[in-house]
Amino acid sequence: MTPSINATIQETTQQLLQLHRSGDDRPLHGLKDQVIRLIGLLRSAMYPQIFTSERYAGPWTGTQIGSYLQQAALLLSDMIRAVTGQESVEAVASFFEALPQVAEILETDIQAAYDGDPAARSTAEIMLAYPAFEAISIFRLAHCLYELQVPLIPRMMTEYAHQTTGVDIHPGASIGPWFFIDHGTGVVVGETCTIGEHVKLYQGVTLGAKSFKADENGNPIKGIKRHPDIGNHVVVYAGATILGGDTVIGDNCVIGGNVWLTDSVPAGSTIYNQPTAVGPVEP
Amino acid sequence: MTPSINATIQETTQQLLQLHRSGDDRPLHGLKDQVIRLIGLLRSAMYPQIFTSERYAGPWTGTQIGSYLQQAALLLSDMIRAVTGQESVEAVASFFEALPQVAEILETDIQAAYDGDPAARSTAEIMLAYPAFEAISIFRLAHCLYELQVPLIPRMMTEYAHQTTGVDIHPGASIGPWFFIDHGTGVVVGETCTIGEHVKLYQGVTLGAKSFKADENGNPIKGIKRHPDIGNHVVVYAGATILGGDTVIGDNCVIGGNVWLTDSVPAGSTIYNQPTAVGPVEP
Amino acid sequence: MTPSINATIQETTQQLLQLHRSGDDRPLHGLKDQVIRLIGLLRSAMYPQIFTSERYAGPWTGTQIGSYLQQAALLLSDMIRAVTGQESVEAVASFFEALPQVAEILETDIQAAYDGDPAARSTAEIMLAYPAFEAISIFRLAHCLYELQVPLIPRMMTEYAHQTTGVDIHPGASIGPWFFIDHGTGVVVGETCTIGEHVKLYQGVTLGAKSFKADENGNPIKGIKRHPDIGNHVVVYAGATILGGDTVIGDNCVIGGNVWLTDSVPAGSTIYNQPTAVGPVEP
Amino acid sequence: MTPSINATIQETTQQLLQLHRSGDDRPLHGLKDQVIRLIGLLRSAMYPQIFTSERYAGPWTGTQIGSYLQQAALLLSDMIRAVTGQESVEAVASFFEALPQVAEILETDIQAAYDGDPAARSTAEIMLAYPAFEAISIFRLAHCLYELQVPLIPRMMTEYAHQTTGVDIHPGASIGPWFFIDHGTGVVVGETCTIGEHVKLYQGVTLGAKSFKADENGNPIKGIKRHPDIGNHVVVYAGATILGGDTVIGDNCVIGGNVWLTDSVPAGSTIYNQPTAVGPVEP
Amino acid sequence: MTPSINATIQETTQQLLQLHRSGDDRPLHGLKDQVIRLIGLLRSAMYPQIFTSERYAGPWTGTQIGSYLQQAALLLSDMIRAVTGQESVEAVASFFEALPQVAEILETDIQAAYDGDPAARSTAEIMLAYPAFEAISIFRLAHCLYELQVPLIPRMMTEYAHQTTGVDIHPGASIGPWFFIDHGTGVVVGETCTIGEHVKLYQGVTLGAKSFKADENGNPIKGIKRHPDIGNHVVVYAGATILGGDTVIGDNCVIGGNVWLTDSVPAGSTIYNQPTAVGPVEP
Amino acid sequence: MTPSINATIQETTQQLLQLHRSGDDRPLHGLKDQVIRLIGLLRSAMYPQIFTSERYAGPWTGTQIGSYLQQAALLLSDMIRAVTGQESVEAVASFFEALPQVAEILETDIQAAYDGDPAARSTAEIMLAYPAFEAISIFRLAHCLYELQVPLIPRMMTEYAHQTTGVDIHPGASIGPWFFIDHGTGVVVGETCTIGEHVKLYQGVTLGAKSFKADENGNPIKGIKRHPDIGNHVVVYAGATILGGDTVIGDNCVIGGNVWLTDSVPAGSTIYNQPTAVGPVEP
Repeated sequence: MTPSINATIQETTQQLLQLHRSGDDRPLHGLKDQVIRLIGLLRSAMYPQIFTSERYAGPWTGTQIGSYLQQAALLLSDMIRAVTGQESVEAVASFFEALPQVAEILETDIQAAYDGDPAARSTAEIMLAYPAFEAISIFRLAHCLYELQVPLIPRMMTEYAHQTTGVDIHPGASIGPWFFIDHGTGVVVGETCTIGEHVKLYQGVTLGAKSFKADENGNPIKGIKRHPDIGNHVVVYAGATILGGDTVIGDNCVIGGNVWLTDSVPAGSTIYNQPTAVGPVEP
Repeated sequence: MTPSINATIQETTQQLLQLHRSGDDRPLHGLKDQVIRLIGLLRSAMYPQIFTSERYAGPWTGTQIGSYLQQAALLLSDMIRAVTGQESVEAVASFFEALPQVAEILETDIQAAYDGDPAARSTAEIMLAYPAFEAISIFRLAHCLYELQVPLIPRMMTEYAHQTTGVDIHPGASIGPWFFIDHGTGVVVGETCTIGEHVKLYQGVTLGAKSFKADENGNPIKGIKRHPDIGNHVVVYAGATILGGDTVIGDNCVIGGNVWLTDSVPAGSTIYNQPTAVGPVEP
Repeated sequence: MTPSINATIQETTQQLLQLHRSGDDRPLHGLKDQVIRLIGLLRSAMYPQIFTSERYAGPWTGTQIGSYLQQAALLLSDMIRAVTGQESVEAVASFFEALPQVAEILETDIQAAYDGDPAARSTAEIMLAYPAFEAISIFRLAHCLYELQVPLIPRMMTEYAHQTTGVDIHPGASIGPWFFIDHGTGVVVGETCTIGEHVKLYQGVTLGAKSFKADENGNPIKGIKRHPDIGNHVVVYAGATILGGDTVIGDNCVIGGNVWLTDSVPAGSTIYNQPTAVGPVEP
Repeated sequence: MTPSINATIQETTQQLLQLHRSGDDRPLHGLKDQVIRLIGLLRSAMYPQIFTSERYAGPWTGTQIGSYLQQAALLLSDMIRAVTGQESVEAVASFFEALPQVAEILETDIQAAYDGDPAARSTAEIMLAYPAFEAISIFRLAHCLYELQVPLIPRMMTEYAHQTTGVDIHPGASIGPWFFIDHGTGVVVGETCTIGEHVKLYQGVTLGAKSFKADENGNPIKGIKRHPDIGNHVVVYAGATILGGDTVIGDNCVIGGNVWLTDSVPAGSTIYNQPTAVGPVEP
Repeated sequence: MTPSINATIQETTQQLLQLHRSGDDRPLHGLKDQVIRLIGLLRSAMYPQIFTSERYAGPWTGTQIGSYLQQAALLLSDMIRAVTGQESVEAVASFFEALPQVAEILETDIQAAYDGDPAARSTAEIMLAYPAFEAISIFRLAHCLYELQVPLIPRMMTEYAHQTTGVDIHPGASIGPWFFIDHGTGVVVGETCTIGEHVKLYQGVTLGAKSFKADENGNPIKGIKRHPDIGNHVVVYAGATILGGDTVIGDNCVIGGNVWLTDSVPAGSTIYNQPTAVGPVEP
Repeated sequence: MTPSINATIQETTQQLLQLHRSGDDRPLHGLKDQVIRLIGLLRSAMYPQIFTSERYAGPWTGTQIGSYLQQAALLLSDMIRAVTGQESVEAVASFFEALPQVAEILETDIQAAYDGDPAARSTAEIMLAYPAFEAISIFRLAHCLYELQVPLIPRMMTEYAHQTTGVDIHPGASIGPWFFIDHGTGVVVGETCTIGEHVKLYQGVTLGAKSFKADENGNPIKGIKRHPDIGNHVVVYAGATILGGDTVIGDNCVIGGNVWLTDSVPAGSTIYNQPTAVGPVEP
């Protein structure tokens, strides 16, 4: 009896071995787990009072932060070596130099969440129970690596945030301070999107591309501006869709729920759908 | 070579140390993991045949349930102490007294899922493969703690459910028995929402607030009714949005997909969008 | 003091014990964790260069693949025994015989993602950072078990993918090669849906059922065709909803964002919503 | 290349499969790990201030002790079922009834260690850093199960103590209170040995059997008294060997280092080796 | 305050970095853990009914054994590559070819333990609760690798057995079938020792070297015969010491407790110490 | 049925609760595991090429060492706080200042093992497969903390080494460089022992106390010299016992196997037992 199962497995092994692509010769083993550990170490270093399982107060806090940073540096060096095949002392150093600035901007995001939600009772609650902080803190770390031209890892970081929050921000997007996303599920922010200060998005908002420009061979042209620019103090309500690289939403605009926008809107505008007629129609 | 990396890390450590907020002196270390363990222990106690990795039948089932409850009680006492700085014998006792009622209401929710989905083949399948059960079981446990005025932890519990299901129910919402949510991704149910018996929601439904009332200083006023009331035997199809604290959906209503509602609807109504004209328009 | 807590727990234990349903006598302990381990082992066998934490090159790759397959076979045999109460040598053998075909189709899906997204830089990136691959690879494995009439497990597999990606594909759906889903959050694909080759869906797309047909007793009739058929080379943009078992979308159609469709569309059509009037209306 | 390795493994698998003894049909999987977990749970229940990784003071200590005891009861029931094939409600209940007495005797052992070693500074040190406590606490628990005629498990428990301390006490031995073993490595105490109160052993002491009595077929006769009786207030120094079921060491004896005894000694005796002549002899 | 601790650590880091030996450039990271995992996998393959935590009966046993063997092969290939810097397909293949013979000899050892100890009640007890089986099974596996001239790993395997049993057998020793060691703590068997069939050792027995022969420079000469030869059917009681490469113990000898031997003994001899005079002498 | 088990457990809980000693109010939870982790971190910092599971070469080695040291500092600060109830910045700093010296002395011990054993093939083998290195490296770290008057922890460290090697060295002993212990099981070295340079011990050697001096009340007097002094270049063979605080073994002595010494020996002596008469005496 067993022989038949074992023979099947043997046969399947041989077939999978032939499908195995020899070109994929850079070892990326375990990169998914490493991404999660890296995010954990960086947040532990920035917020030891929240994200660590052990407490070290008084004279030891600095040692604890340093320990997390060193572990993160070693891990990141491993990951970049796996992805690029090269050492990365400068990239890692630059990333850690930028980290305090990331932490400072995140303070504004935490404050924006606290100010923007009547239900929020403390900044600790923002960090522990708001998908906005989860998504934005990971995005800002990933964006920092994206700017240093580290491949693959920034995308994996924001995709991890996408998994845990339903918020899909491309690490290439530029986003100002005091950024808040409420509820968040289904939000999409594209790679060439820019977002100003004090912007608030609700669940299901898409800041995306129109149909891609194709070259003569029908392949999408890479590296061109495809996503909209959002000004300062803009609110975009749930389910709204704003598309296109030429689309500019001016400062202080309010975009209503489910609005579909492919053209620019001047500063100070308030845009809502007309109520659609409702009645007893079969679906 | 190394010195430069180590010097960078040392410098970053000092800068993060200065950003470290001294006011955050309540230790919340590891609270995220504790929330997940608490949910696991409570569901193991309520459904040992499903949610445990070891089986204990016959005379041992009671011992097994008791063991999970005791572990959950210790863990919850730790968590409340971390969050409030105080002992919580009464709150924990009240929570465990209420647990059998939670289990009874969840039986109605399981039955509602089984009755409402042609694809469901057993109640075990509901518990193992339906986001509705994941989201609603966690909500009902969290709501119980919310009613006992335990801070932060209920929100963290429902946010965990939000992460795993995409369903974002505030623990303050009041929801009757026989509640079902199909598919679920993107559902939002606000803090002051009330929902009757035998209600069914589809993915992407929002039961939310209109724009917040602000006080004289422009800060949102807290603690006021902001979200709608949904009657008994109501169905809300995918993507529908119902907003406002004064909005009441009467019993036996059917709200169609993508409908946008900011006004009340009398009992027995069926509300659908008029079909929008369709044609070959560029996006 | 303690006695009161312990007495409460004792009392709650007895009440939960009475609620405990004696009918649920098939042990399903730990099935959720087993589903996750099974998916991990199968992907490790198909893509050892990506999904394993240790590398084995040259003469050892075959041994490594074989090892993962054997572990997966043992685990699957356990799971099927738990779910059906019976041995399953043939089902397991058939599943492993089909695995190379699954791997071949997944190559087309990886290629479709790479071709369809200007931001993709390598096929490794597709496998590591795209929810499409996560959702589709799990769906194709689950569909294979669904076809072998293994109960419960396929649904748990796709529900796991739903949790990590927000993409909810029923394992019963039939989906051709070169399938791609961009962003994905909120996508729903129903059990009796068929999808052709080279189809691309965006986030929030629903391929669902109209209201269920009920029998004389008001119960939904099971096993009938309820979801639409999608042809080859079709693109469906974000938030579009296509409903009904009679609804057929012909080859080469483009369905625009937020479009609501309950009727068939001939091949080659491009369907968009008329822009809704926009203006300064209060929400 | 790989085929040859895989073929070898395949061949070895078949050969091991044939060696696999069909008679061993009681599943003992994981019993070694369970023994370690059982010991851990029991000591956590008896000494929560020392052997647990989380602290629960005040009103919660009782809940914590109860939780460990319930987990231990479930685990022990599993283990006895694996070993005997039968339920064991009474044996488990009897064991737990006896546990407080075990704890009381262990208090005398802790006190004996504290009194007997000039280096001991606290009773906590005895529990944390003395092999005597490790070996004796496990022995007393195992002896309790041995008396209840639970097979195999008591031996595995004392063999675990043997591994961690080098002290090999058979669970069948009878040992009075205030028992202490210093250093301990190499101590052997046989199954039918009896030891009085206030006895102290040093490393390398053997309380063993002379050559076994054999029956007509040359097989050792089982179940007969084979090991010595040690009175009260006896000290046995390092490396001493006392053999035989008829050998009785009276109260208040002192047995010197490396002494070899196969005969009884009256109460109050002090027995030492004559110093062996020493000098420059080649080994 | 913190700076001083961090400065100290920084300083210590630099000093340790300078002590770090550049010559140790073969990565041996984690080899200790790998040794333990290898032993676990091999015993799981040989005795799945005892040493695994999951059971697979009937048609699956072969798949389970094969799975453990493949994992062991991959692990061993890693370990040999770490130790030698070279691939090892042949050594691994030869080792697995020899494995069934190892299993067969171990059956004789298990039987010898069962026959030799009046307290043993089943062969499962031998495998689960006897240090003899722990030490001898690891020795026989290690000896097999020693014969294949794999460096370092065999010594680490027997040293692991030494840790868990106190029995220190060099992997180079040659030991016949039906070998048994009772209690075992303190047993030492040297590298060039040979032991016949049906030999039984008690705790504290040394089969060692006299003082080493040195070359002209005072360095010990390597690779010469240094340890005794033990014939068939020999019993050596506790604490006996037998030294020297020329020392031969003939068949059917009995060597008494604490005997010190540096000369050969003819077959059939029974050697005991004369009782030393005993009396009230101060230590 | 269950009630009886649960009632028993409830009753046992109450009884254990009463036995629970209220005086033990310093929380020592988890100290045993922390000791093991501390030893692991310190050895990883000193020998990253051997004792870590990940490798970091070139510019990263310093970061890796620093990371282990910082983690060790945090852990040690926790442990000292648990044991003494006080902060310990100075003790921790002093310990880390001394660490490079410990590493330097250990180099001599490694060399002594390599020189002293004909079987040793590399210094890596010494570190990976010799109980001498395990025991001595832990002793030297523990002795360093003992000198800083840290209570309890040093004893727990050497007791851990005792468990894994059978070598029981009190952390208070003073031991010079080039120290080697062969095989090691059963070695005991007392608290007030001093050992010179280039000393070699074999298994079963005791450097212990004669009977303790007692005060007027019969309690052993603490803090007096109780154990022997061993000179430079001394070899002590297996099983030898040297006792007493006044006993001095001069430089360059050789003490033979099983010798029992309670008096001093002048430098350059070689001391062996006279061979005991052997013959066919019944045991």
